[in-house]
Amino acid sequence: MARKTGSHSEITGPRIRAAAEHLFARHGYAAVSMRQIAAEVGVQAGALYLYTPDKQSLLADLMRAHLEGLLAACAALPEAPGPEARLAQFARFHIGYHIERPDAVFIAYMELRNLEPANFAAIEALRRQYEDRLEAILRDGRAAGAFTIPDTKLATLALIAMLTGVTNWYREGGRLGRAEVEAIYADMALKAVGATGIAG
Amino acid sequence: MARKTGSHSEITGPRIRAAAEHLFARHGYAAVSMRQIAAEVGVQAGALYLYTPDKQSLLADLMRAHLEGLLAACAALPEAPGPEARLAQFARFHIGYHIERPDAVFIAYMELRNLEPANFAAIEALRRQYEDRLEAILRDGRAAGAFTIPDTKLATLALIAMLTGVTNWYREGGRLGRAEVEAIYADMALKAVGATGIAG
Repeated sequence: MARKTGSHSEITGPRIRAAAEHLFARHGYAAVSMRQIAAEVGVQAGALYLYTPDKQSLLADLMRAHLEGLLAACAALPEAPGPEARLAQFARFHIGYHIERPDAVFIAYMELRNLEPANFAAIEALRRQYEDRLEAILRDGRAAGAFTIPDTKLATLALIAMLTGVTNWYREGGRLGRAEVEAIYADMALKAVGATGIAG
Repeated sequence: MARKTGSHSEITGPRIRAAAEHLFARHGYAAVSMRQIAAEVGVQAGALYLYTPDKQSLLADLMRAHLEGLLAACAALPEAPGPEARLAQFARFHIGYHIERPDAVFIAYMELRNLEPANFAAIEALRRQYEDRLEAILRDGRAAGAFTIPDTKLATLALIAMLTGVTNWYREGGRLGRAEVEAIYADMALKAVGATGIAG
């Protein structure tokens, strides 16, 4: 069935995505049925198929929307003066963006195994685009003599894993506030690539 | 049904664990039935219940075995001279141990959501024990003036996330060999806590 456009899908689409994201993150993609997603939204299963052809498309849509949102937000960051400021800005941005979206982050990593090959390739291409943003900062910093990095690709993957890890444990109202956590991680990211840190 | 001891369970136990680990990592805990695990092992579903009371116990067993193995291997590391050498050794060890067990690592992170509260608490306590090993190295290094760390707990979590991230992309026969990857990451870990790196 073709995807409908107009007010119907505009109203239902975000609710369907939100329900699917919630259920996939909680139970796992393979364990969730279209019927469950429909029930969570409060519509009949048939109504779901007006929005998406199948569960696989819904999963790919969720991941694509997450990465496209991430790329757009990253592209909208203000110009920062010099490689150290750019890397610190990236680190803070990455943490802030991800801790607000724990379900999307969880799905983005966990459900890669459930993407069909064409969807997997498309999602991986978007992820690589994002990694390239960070690698460009690292390469520029190395070229300028600000960073010491034996391998910019490895450093990119290492920093992204380190920063994303915050989503595993960060809770609002915990021992450290968000700004403090961002500052400490930005400092470690800078030091990890051989720059002078920004905190104690 | 009580768990049997003796030769029967000794032969079947490891095969059941291996099958469950493989299926949980591939499809997710919630999507895998005891019947599927039995089929993968090549036994009747009833035989599975001689080994484990239910799927939840099997999941908790897998995670416990993974973390206990990790703790034992970490405890068996030779004494290293000074905080820098200890941290470099820990970083190499952590990467090496985890890249050999991608399914166990995947399950250890992904299926926490599916542990019942008592099992979750037991697994978290083991994980914390392991984190404490690294935090002790960081604290000693800071006390000795070798490391500059604003918050040793955060640095612990940051380094573990960074090092574990290797399991997401490392493949034997890739661009960089395992020893090279371990050296580059150990170097970044040292620098991230304000020590002089060992490479680059």
